[in-house]
Amino acid sequence: MPQDDQLTTADSEFDRATTVHRAEAGGYVADLQPGWDVGSGILNGGYLLAVAARVAVADSPHPHPVAVSASYLRATPPGPATLAVTPGPAGRTLAHTAVVLSGAEGPTLSVQVTTATLSGEAPVHSSPAPEVPPVEECLGAQPGADMGGHPVPAVGLRHRVETRLDPATAGWALGTPSGEPVMRAYLRLADGRDPDPLALLLFADVLPPTSWSMGLMGWAPTVQLQVLVRALPAPGWCLAEARATEIAGGWLDEEYRIWDSTGRLVAQSRQLARAPR
Amino acid sequence: MPQDDQLTTADSEFDRATTVHRAEAGGYVADLQPGWDVGSGILNGGYLLAVAARVAVADSPHPHPVAVSASYLRATPPGPATLAVTPGPAGRTLAHTAVVLSGAEGPTLSVQVTTATLSGEAPVHSSPAPEVPPVEECLGAQPGADMGGHPVPAVGLRHRVETRLDPATAGWALGTPSGEPVMRAYLRLADGRDPDPLALLLFADVLPPTSWSMGLMGWAPTVQLQVLVRALPAPGWCLAEARATEIAGGWLDEEYRIWDSTGRLVAQSRQLARAPR
Repeated sequence: MPQDDQLTTADSEFDRATTVHRAEAGGYVADLQPGWDVGSGILNGGYLLAVAARVAVADSPHPHPVAVSASYLRATPPGPATLAVTPGPAGRTLAHTAVVLSGAEGPTLSVQVTTATLSGEAPVHSSPAPEVPPVEECLGAQPGADMGGHPVPAVGLRHRVETRLDPATAGWALGTPSGEPVMRAYLRLADGRDPDPLALLLFADVLPPTSWSMGLMGWAPTVQLQVLVRALPAPGWCLAEARATEIAGGWLDEEYRIWDSTGRLVAQSRQLARAPR
Repeated sequence: MPQDDQLTTADSEFDRATTVHRAEAGGYVADLQPGWDVGSGILNGGYLLAVAARVAVADSPHPHPVAVSASYLRATPPGPATLAVTPGPAGRTLAHTAVVLSGAEGPTLSVQVTTATLSGEAPVHSSPAPEVPPVEECLGAQPGADMGGHPVPAVGLRHRVETRLDPATAGWALGTPSGEPVMRAYLRLADGRDPDPLALLLFADVLPPTSWSMGLMGWAPTVQLQVLVRALPAPGWCLAEARATEIAGGWLDEEYRIWDSTGRLVAQSRQLARAPR
């Protein structure tokens, strides 16, 4: 392969920002884009997962990341990054790949990716999407909006992913947190690109911490995140529901379920994060 | 450290079976015990996770595994195993460790462990345990019991972990699968040892596949599993609820929540497995 074999070229800002190139010395390189931050120059965990999954898919006989587990070792800043790959067993049904992303200061993200080929098969058992008002009745969560004295932080991520909050779970944005750590929102890439498994990895960590619904308005850095991609999403808006099961002792879990525009469950995730105090 | 520095000695069969020793050449060794199998000489995924977490804890300044993500690369047979450790960042709050378990045929399990020090702090938000009849009204799932023409396989694991099924979710054992992929059971170590975070890792993958409640009676090998340990469990029985969100295209997810004898949520897990056809 030539040194600069670019694995993705596209008109989509998301595709460009997650592009990886094979490196001459082995492994891959990426140029992590500053626009995908969650404030303070820290890149979003889902964005980084999409970059790592691109590498795994490039190294696998299978096209779709179906299970992705990541440890967030350190905060990852924008800029050049290297991605080291350790291939695992690869078979007819699935393949395993380990990817370690490193910046100038060393490893920041360690990811295990299982790739497979998702079929269009109808589910034997599934979970229906929750009842949410139509997109046009939901609330935009654009930077600068007032959240009851807590203005939405000017984070790049909110410009990259269009987010429309279910009013029933957006009390925190209006100064009246619901007291239940649940958020629901329609999501789509702002660049107009339709969702795919890589976009689902981004969506699986895209909402503000559900602890905001408890009035705990600080940030909640991800420690470990697992995402399962269950089906290829149909074009259009996805609907995500994030929920914390327990907030205790300085820790918070966040569990996402994501449905596509046809109401099919397409992804699930769970993360352990540090809870805001 | 001397070559045979044994990190655990105990009267508990579980502690003995998960004992690890530092190896002279670096890393650790374990002697994986055949009694912790799920049939066909294949060891249980939760048992292997407990062995790997012991290594991570031994290498960490923190005593408790709080987040554990594992890729099951190949089936792991009983016998001698080596555990290679790659330490990650370690701080006052948490530490990251990567552990790869290998048998005679090469790596079989790749695990990322986050260790921390769990406090006894009361939850800010939690999820109550489901209503289940008392232990004495639940059904023992001992090997040899009849499950409506499907005798309980003679798996070692059922002798190691006492399992009392909620009758409401045990229809599959009586020949009348409920049609809902949910199982609830009380669990405790058969050796009488009280639960701790390592036992919770075992419990997080200990029930039969929830697809059995759909009448799909085959095995469901784990592909990736993430376990979060949320609190130190009180002595006595734990209560586990396992639930599949979606069964589709040859894949199954299993989500566990585990409460201790005081009703406190102490662990959560999610795995992606191959679904029985």
